[in-house]
Amino acid sequence: MDNDDLRRGKPTCHKMFGEAVALLAGDALLTEAFRVMTDPAVSSASPEVTQKVVYEIARGAGAAGMVAGQAVDVVYEGKKGTKRIVNLIHRNKTGALIRASVLTGALVGKANKKALNCFTIFGESIGLAFQIMDDILDVEGTEAEVGKKLKKDAEKQTYVRYYGIAASKARIDSLVNKAIDAVRFLGTGADMLVQAANFIGHRSF
Amino acid sequence: MDNDDLRRGKPTCHKMFGEAVALLAGDALLTEAFRVMTDPAVSSASPEVTQKVVYEIARGAGAAGMVAGQAVDVVYEGKKGTKRIVNLIHRNKTGALIRASVLTGALVGKANKKALNCFTIFGESIGLAFQIMDDILDVEGTEAEVGKKLKKDAEKQTYVRYYGIAASKARIDSLVNKAIDAVRFLGTGADMLVQAANFIGHRSF
Repeated sequence: MDNDDLRRGKPTCHKMFGEAVALLAGDALLTEAFRVMTDPAVSSASPEVTQKVVYEIARGAGAAGMVAGQAVDVVYEGKKGTKRIVNLIHRNKTGALIRASVLTGALVGKANKKALNCFTIFGESIGLAFQIMDDILDVEGTEAEVGKKLKKDAEKQTYVRYYGIAASKARIDSLVNKAIDAVRFLGTGADMLVQAANFIGHRSF
Repeated sequence: MDNDDLRRGKPTCHKMFGEAVALLAGDALLTEAFRVMTDPAVSSASPEVTQKVVYEIARGAGAAGMVAGQAVDVVYEGKKGTKRIVNLIHRNKTGALIRASVLTGALVGKANKKALNCFTIFGESIGLAFQIMDDILDVEGTEAEVGKKLKKDAEKQTYVRYYGIAASKARIDSLVNKAIDAVRFLGTGADMLVQAANFIGHRSF
């Protein structure tokens, strides 16, 4: 959608195979995700859990989540935005699907309603932190390390544009701490989640 | 994907709103379908039925169905094909999702395995008939009635190209009869399905 030549250091799909095939690859992968989730040969989750997982992932990926964020991002390119707009984009474009990913694990693990609320906070916080870091890496990263074309967000709604580098970094730290606090109730069971949150807060690629 | 200006007599989405927004609209609608199917506020189907319905629709729409057919269609555009290729395209591009639509009703209606096999034959037969009719309408239809640009399949793998008009029409008749035979066991309960099959076999738009 940004017509980049590279992703993770490799040529993008539409550059390799053309726009039509790239579009179909996207449709195929998106649909295949739902087929795999409901394939009894792949998943041993109960039908009740499966239904909830499909719902959360569709909600996070679709018109109320990632697609909404990406659409506002595209429509506001080159336009004057606000802090409210950049937060709306970031929470939906990246945060909603990361929340869904976290909730999927929680649902399969039979988390109760209170725990699901905590995992929602965890997912939304690391999701927003991830996207703010993307904005910072666009300014401070190197293309070799990040693996895509950088310094191309000048026309986009970014955290750096509306908050500056220092406040953006402080926001990441506070979001990572909020995420870690939300899963503290798991005790040592939270170790991998804490590692994931810290990774997102300090990644350079 | 065919870069047409019109669909059903109206400007296509990418002509109205640009490619990026059209692409996102596609992703949003595809994902929203799965959200709606699993939303307990919308569907009263049991989790067991819901899981099977999502699976059948994902299988019909995705890499093993519609997307596969569309991909082969795109890749073979302007190339020499075979009867086998055109059948593969038509069965997947249109037939697989129509089969899934029919099976969805059957699953919600708690059809047994034998009945599901009959509905599969019904869906695949009317699906293939629908696509063959599309090829015929491209040659014989009028743009005003069909609602899209016609006479543009010269570079495509079509039934008319490999079988001719007369044999294509005969194939539609035989597929419609096969479909109707498959649901004969429903007695008068098959009336609407028979009407649908006959509509597909005689449509002019």
